[in-house]
Amino acid sequence: MASQLSIAPYISHIIPPTTLQGIAKQWLAEDVPSFDIAACVVGDKPEECVLLCKSPGVLCGVPFFNAVFQQLNCDVTWFIAEGTYIDDTPSRIAVVKGPASCILQGERPALNCIARASGIATHARELRRIREEYTWEGQIAGTRKTTPGFRLVEKYALLIGGISTHRYDLSSMVMLKDNHIWSMGSISAAVKRTREIGGFSIKIEVECRSIEEAIEAAKSGADIAMLDNWSPDSAKTAAEQLKNDFPHLIIECSGGIRKDNCHLYFSQNIDVVSMSSTTQGYGVVDFSLKVKRDDIDITNPLRDRIKQ
Amino acid sequence: MASQLSIAPYISHIIPPTTLQGIAKQWLAEDVPSFDIAACVVGDKPEECVLLCKSPGVLCGVPFFNAVFQQLNCDVTWFIAEGTYIDDTPSRIAVVKGPASCILQGERPALNCIARASGIATHARELRRIREEYTWEGQIAGTRKTTPGFRLVEKYALLIGGISTHRYDLSSMVMLKDNHIWSMGSISAAVKRTREIGGFSIKIEVECRSIEEAIEAAKSGADIAMLDNWSPDSAKTAAEQLKNDFPHLIIECSGGIRKDNCHLYFSQNIDVVSMSSTTQGYGVVDFSLKVKRDDIDITNPLRDRIKQ
Amino acid sequence: MASQLSIAPYISHIIPPTTLQGIAKQWLAEDVPSFDIAACVVGDKPEECVLLCKSPGVLCGVPFFNAVFQQLNCDVTWFIAEGTYIDDTPSRIAVVKGPASCILQGERPALNCIARASGIATHARELRRIREEYTWEGQIAGTRKTTPGFRLVEKYALLIGGISTHRYDLSSMVMLKDNHIWSMGSISAAVKRTREIGGFSIKIEVECRSIEEAIEAAKSGADIAMLDNWSPDSAKTAAEQLKNDFPHLIIECSGGIRKDNCHLYFSQNIDVVSMSSTTQGYGVVDFSLKVKRDDIDITNPLRDRIKQ
Amino acid sequence: MASQLSIAPYISHIIPPTTLQGIAKQWLAEDVPSFDIAACVVGDKPEECVLLCKSPGVLCGVPFFNAVFQQLNCDVTWFIAEGTYIDDTPSRIAVVKGPASCILQGERPALNCIARASGIATHARELRRIREEYTWEGQIAGTRKTTPGFRLVEKYALLIGGISTHRYDLSSMVMLKDNHIWSMGSISAAVKRTREIGGFSIKIEVECRSIEEAIEAAKSGADIAMLDNWSPDSAKTAAEQLKNDFPHLIIECSGGIRKDNCHLYFSQNIDVVSMSSTTQGYGVVDFSLKVKRDDIDITNPLRDRIKQ
Amino acid sequence: MASQLSIAPYISHIIPPTTLQGIAKQWLAEDVPSFDIAACVVGDKPEECVLLCKSPGVLCGVPFFNAVFQQLNCDVTWFIAEGTYIDDTPSRIAVVKGPASCILQGERPALNCIARASGIATHARELRRIREEYTWEGQIAGTRKTTPGFRLVEKYALLIGGISTHRYDLSSMVMLKDNHIWSMGSISAAVKRTREIGGFSIKIEVECRSIEEAIEAAKSGADIAMLDNWSPDSAKTAAEQLKNDFPHLIIECSGGIRKDNCHLYFSQNIDVVSMSSTTQGYGVVDFSLKVKRDDIDITNPLRDRIKQ
Amino acid sequence: MASQLSIAPYISHIIPPTTLQGIAKQWLAEDVPSFDIAACVVGDKPEECVLLCKSPGVLCGVPFFNAVFQQLNCDVTWFIAEGTYIDDTPSRIAVVKGPASCILQGERPALNCIARASGIATHARELRRIREEYTWEGQIAGTRKTTPGFRLVEKYALLIGGISTHRYDLSSMVMLKDNHIWSMGSISAAVKRTREIGGFSIKIEVECRSIEEAIEAAKSGADIAMLDNWSPDSAKTAAEQLKNDFPHLIIECSGGIRKDNCHLYFSQNIDVVSMSSTTQGYGVVDFSLKVKRDDIDITNPLRDRIKQ
Repeated sequence: MASQLSIAPYISHIIPPTTLQGIAKQWLAEDVPSFDIAACVVGDKPEECVLLCKSPGVLCGVPFFNAVFQQLNCDVTWFIAEGTYIDDTPSRIAVVKGPASCILQGERPALNCIARASGIATHARELRRIREEYTWEGQIAGTRKTTPGFRLVEKYALLIGGISTHRYDLSSMVMLKDNHIWSMGSISAAVKRTREIGGFSIKIEVECRSIEEAIEAAKSGADIAMLDNWSPDSAKTAAEQLKNDFPHLIIECSGGIRKDNCHLYFSQNIDVVSMSSTTQGYGVVDFSLKVKRDDIDITNPLRDRIKQ
Repeated sequence: MASQLSIAPYISHIIPPTTLQGIAKQWLAEDVPSFDIAACVVGDKPEECVLLCKSPGVLCGVPFFNAVFQQLNCDVTWFIAEGTYIDDTPSRIAVVKGPASCILQGERPALNCIARASGIATHARELRRIREEYTWEGQIAGTRKTTPGFRLVEKYALLIGGISTHRYDLSSMVMLKDNHIWSMGSISAAVKRTREIGGFSIKIEVECRSIEEAIEAAKSGADIAMLDNWSPDSAKTAAEQLKNDFPHLIIECSGGIRKDNCHLYFSQNIDVVSMSSTTQGYGVVDFSLKVKRDDIDITNPLRDRIKQ
Repeated sequence: MASQLSIAPYISHIIPPTTLQGIAKQWLAEDVPSFDIAACVVGDKPEECVLLCKSPGVLCGVPFFNAVFQQLNCDVTWFIAEGTYIDDTPSRIAVVKGPASCILQGERPALNCIARASGIATHARELRRIREEYTWEGQIAGTRKTTPGFRLVEKYALLIGGISTHRYDLSSMVMLKDNHIWSMGSISAAVKRTREIGGFSIKIEVECRSIEEAIEAAKSGADIAMLDNWSPDSAKTAAEQLKNDFPHLIIECSGGIRKDNCHLYFSQNIDVVSMSSTTQGYGVVDFSLKVKRDDIDITNPLRDRIKQ
Repeated sequence: MASQLSIAPYISHIIPPTTLQGIAKQWLAEDVPSFDIAACVVGDKPEECVLLCKSPGVLCGVPFFNAVFQQLNCDVTWFIAEGTYIDDTPSRIAVVKGPASCILQGERPALNCIARASGIATHARELRRIREEYTWEGQIAGTRKTTPGFRLVEKYALLIGGISTHRYDLSSMVMLKDNHIWSMGSISAAVKRTREIGGFSIKIEVECRSIEEAIEAAKSGADIAMLDNWSPDSAKTAAEQLKNDFPHLIIECSGGIRKDNCHLYFSQNIDVVSMSSTTQGYGVVDFSLKVKRDDIDITNPLRDRIKQ
Repeated sequence: MASQLSIAPYISHIIPPTTLQGIAKQWLAEDVPSFDIAACVVGDKPEECVLLCKSPGVLCGVPFFNAVFQQLNCDVTWFIAEGTYIDDTPSRIAVVKGPASCILQGERPALNCIARASGIATHARELRRIREEYTWEGQIAGTRKTTPGFRLVEKYALLIGGISTHRYDLSSMVMLKDNHIWSMGSISAAVKRTREIGGFSIKIEVECRSIEEAIEAAKSGADIAMLDNWSPDSAKTAAEQLKNDFPHLIIECSGGIRKDNCHLYFSQNIDVVSMSSTTQGYGVVDFSLKVKRDDIDITNPLRDRIKQ
Repeated sequence: MASQLSIAPYISHIIPPTTLQGIAKQWLAEDVPSFDIAACVVGDKPEECVLLCKSPGVLCGVPFFNAVFQQLNCDVTWFIAEGTYIDDTPSRIAVVKGPASCILQGERPALNCIARASGIATHARELRRIREEYTWEGQIAGTRKTTPGFRLVEKYALLIGGISTHRYDLSSMVMLKDNHIWSMGSISAAVKRTREIGGFSIKIEVECRSIEEAIEAAKSGADIAMLDNWSPDSAKTAAEQLKNDFPHLIIECSGGIRKDNCHLYFSQNIDVVSMSSTTQGYGVVDFSLKVKRDDIDITNPLRDRIKQ
């Protein structure tokens, strides 16, 4: 069942525990601003729930799921690892133990998170598969077009799916667009000032509308030239010429690129293909939490189909 | 161009200004944790940008968009109103004025919000249209399956699109599911305790697997019976019988209902049809902010196609 | 000593643990913005303190008390349960163990909370007793007239005392008052729009100055008619007529109702009597924390009068 | 109508504007965690409401009331000043202007604050009057027995009423109680260490059970001796002796002191009498906000009795 | 190696655990706003690191260091106590155990804190030594000239170093400067109003430019007279005269006083000498965290010089 | 007087206005946790204060200073620009106008900020001068050794002073140290995994103990080789060889480098010299706020020496 990127388990460490705790608290507060009246029905007696994956996809979001239930004094035991592709569904993939009221308070935020994270990771994994199918060495990347307040999960899910996050935010890489360039009068003036302030530790990317602009960007010290909304052919031609003169220049294509046409940009001289569909309009993987009852055996956790 | 729910302008008042300000601050902080180096290129000279809508859909998210730019000392002037369906694209729909660096700092969070909100509202409006096509009097509703941290926008967008939010959170209505009922031994015991604590001001819904359960729920004082994962026919038959005996009981159908099959549940005796696809896996409407330049006339804002 | 609502233990679960932790942190920060100099005197040696109840009343606030001391790495053991009426005072009702400085840091916020919560619950319990004395089936309810920032405790204490919270906040039920109705021109127009936005999951209450208004409210789909500042007789007469025509309409009386006159409104046709004195101008129950010393035996915790 | 402490207007400046804004945001969020559905009925058309004082008392809480409405883009005009005693009720005391939905969103938090603050100030003023009646030069003071999260308002109201706040929190003065003294073995050891850490800028108070303890406290450098739960006579006798030997020692009496017996402690040698009833179990002053309608003249704001 | 103020261990209790946790979370968030990519290299395998002190000084900041690592699920074992002077460097002074990624996430904030706190404490201790050398009984104190957001650590470090914090903030003591006095017209008017509002629990200090002003301050009830920017001789002369007439008046000298000239102000009649250099422009003590490797023996933790 | 980096005015835009507001609120809250009693003395009458620079240095911190006073409804007018070197002191450099109590509430946080920021910028400018004296083209950079919670100001001040910030935090560049490398077994394995997760948008630096390690780092795709604690000669020799083979590799020297020896590392092949003294143990520039009085003329703001 369980093909998994070998690097996935390491990725989960890139989010510090304090960050996870803070997020979990906010999500729980969103769902219970005052009272959870229904909790007076179930009380705090110990309960055990099974997490079912009900549609195929890449499991993603384990650190967030754990953090939500840790805040509620519940324990989670996983049968499969973060990043695993689950194709035989429904499958039991984890057990959550804790006070009944707490499990139910965490259920919706925790499921809402992994449904989306897994949806993104599943799509990202498919993009990676296409890349591998074409034996392209470059990187497929997301964009900053993420859900406000939910970027951490979405960018993380791209990594679990096996593609690149692209820059995380405005503080982590500089991208100079038309606006910036018009302000300074020229690409080289804009790159020069950016480098003066940004220093050596930050990368600078320049959106280029022509090969002349890309050459100017490269000459002035930009790290990356973005060919925005270029046709595959013109992009490839330009990339070849640019790489010839500036072998260290990274070349990114973006704009109107989707799963079904991304392979048209795969070429030796193009390093990055980015697409906003990675974190916009993505689907979800279907998970649910079910109370473990005596008439269901969970000793063999995986691949046991459960009648719903 | 612009058919619009007549109630849409009123809806935007349901979010207090302090809430909007708080959200805007969080979104901006997410995108600039420390420095926005590129701002040193554009500086704070006054700039004017045009908001373009580039794919058809319902404009949604105006209060959030405004709040983001208000935090950044920018003004926004809208040419069309919240809730308007825009079919002739690209159209110029607003102008943002303010310091250049501030416009660029607000651009991505503001666009990310309205792209998603408008995607949800567009889908919701289509569901409402189907309802009207079938002249069904009931309500189509969302669920609590929303993006963690982004529920306010998503639920709001359902309203702008013309459908119901369903309960907002665990504090605003009680829903008793299998878990709750097993805990108390019976539906009537569970409803009784819920009412004792929840009082008269809150509604109580009970998930029912059979008509007997729905009858028990109604008799014990539940306000709403949810028929979860029932076939259209069995749901309609049960609803007729229930309404006969309990005319004030609200009957909701849920589970596996989508845009393409929801009409099968439309009937005189069913009051609510809810579906998670309203806030999960939704598409986006394409917006962008472009610097206003002298060679483009924006005096006639709408319907002027712009060459990108 | 210890009569207790059998449901009280369940009520404490309606506040999620993350909420309790967040509140406790704020309360502690309020009392020690920088240093607690006195802590350098007592240090962190293990200490044991006894919680004494020194005036009769209903114990209320256990989850908050526990949360405060949990933040400070202290343990609390209770001898009586939340919601118990304590009439034999002074009584030892709990023991707090932990580092001396931590116990003293938590003492005042924890006592301030339970003194007030118990004061409210004691008054609420007396109201409930009056209701039972008159064998009235309706609900006595609080209002939104609560201490800013302290509503969670105050509303919770009403439940522990055995009466209804009424709506928690502006998001959990809609009440249409004169202002709202004037804005729309009529009760029916106001209710219609509210239902259109609020949907099926929220209750709508309308403040009515005449029976005609109450009838209009009922006809337009309001769930609750509030008779504000009506005399007992006129309220009862109206309620009888309204219930005849609209058996599902909930009828609430409010305005100028207190413990000493509330029974005048008790009638078969009135469902709810609400009063702001439940969370305004309430008294306190007297608690104190005393260091356990060797010369005092606490093995028999209750009813042992202690010389102060 | 309007006797007022001449210093009251100055007191309101002791709370920085940023503090007021932060508080107002929290209070508003408490009352509208998500949507204020009723706002879609009234919309944002400009409205004008009159603040009525309906029961006699000292107006207190103006800075908080203003801060709430400032957050909501509303203006407040006051006809009387903070700290004024209003005896001719109902009186119109202020006008609030702003968008209708915003006035209604601020109404409850703003009224809840001034009702309580005015209740406290009214009681405090009565205590001050008693002090003046007995021509006692000492200070009547509150305690730290305040509502968790609401101390700022409560302590502020004591000042507006004309009495002393006592120490604000654990960081602003050190009080050594039995616990602290047992820890160090002696009062002098406890005071010595406290002074070593607390330095010259903080005052040190010691709870004393005997005159010997008070002498030890004074000798070791304590600033204040607290005679806790002493009878008036024993307190006066001890105070005389202490003042003789330690003229700079401040002597405070506390424990079981209320409005009706506080005068028993008034004497030349007692400097402070503190009582928890100042911020516990206090009453409220009755205020309400009414829409200004054409048939009511508000040009002569005060003393115009209004038929409700 | 290890001379230590005997009181130092007690001082660390003056910061409540909730305060420490809150601070640690903020510091960690500052250093990892989104991902810590490097964590994917080291993973979460258990690691053990040694804290080395590499330059002589007073160890200060243990509670903060512990709090940072507690947030990250790491344990810290100390070989020496807070406040110890370390002169034999490099020395191993603690061991941190926990997941490798967590140790590295905490390393920089934790070291940044103790480097600065120890720098301050080392300087403070030197000032205290000078005081003792001159057998002066007065207090050397800091000021409010602290790093914004870091005052808690800086004031705490003064205590660990053995000198006084002076007032912590504007809420904990009142200091009346030229501005305040001009506002009221006279020192006595300013002190009178301050006392009326501040009450008996707060100390009042007055900045005095002449002995006449100091006399006026003392007569009107000020607790402390500050001689700001007075020469040593004029200060001593004035202090003698003032102490003669007002033995309880505390006399502070401030302005232009540094380590090299502070002794000039030491005299029987001067109680406090304050200097801003205590928390401004201070040096750091050099610490680093090194992975414990098999070829290094740490059983004898102190004084083992380690080759770096 | 006023030499200034021409780029300085642009730098201040890199901090978004929402960030500045948030910081200002925290700083103000730190200094007034509850009441500012002294404000009742000065009241809110309009006041005008002059900002004096009393010791030579680079003015730095204008955006923060403005933000503090903006929160307090005060206006600031500057006579000189951010980044200007002020050598003729004391000079009047700005005027603050607003309510007297508000100016005094902002005074200390605002001065504490610019004193430190200007201290850092002054030192940074001196380092830049040395670089220019030696006509070295490389960058002098800071480190992550900043004051917890104050990094934004400190890194910003490096830019105003004219040197590089180096990476801002763990999220903005990856640095692989001994620990990371030991974990993976080799530099190339560590770089490979980092690149796989970090993607193309982030730079990777490797701490190297030998030229072999630096070569391995370069070959495996690291962007920067850090020569930590290398002697100037060995660093220069290695750098030459490395640049020969890897012209795009950035070479940084760090460890034990200070103002007095940094020039030893300046060479054509070394790109970056970093030193922790830039943000540790830095001095302050002396500023103060003085009430503007009629007897002082401020029409000619600069270079007017003022008698203090």
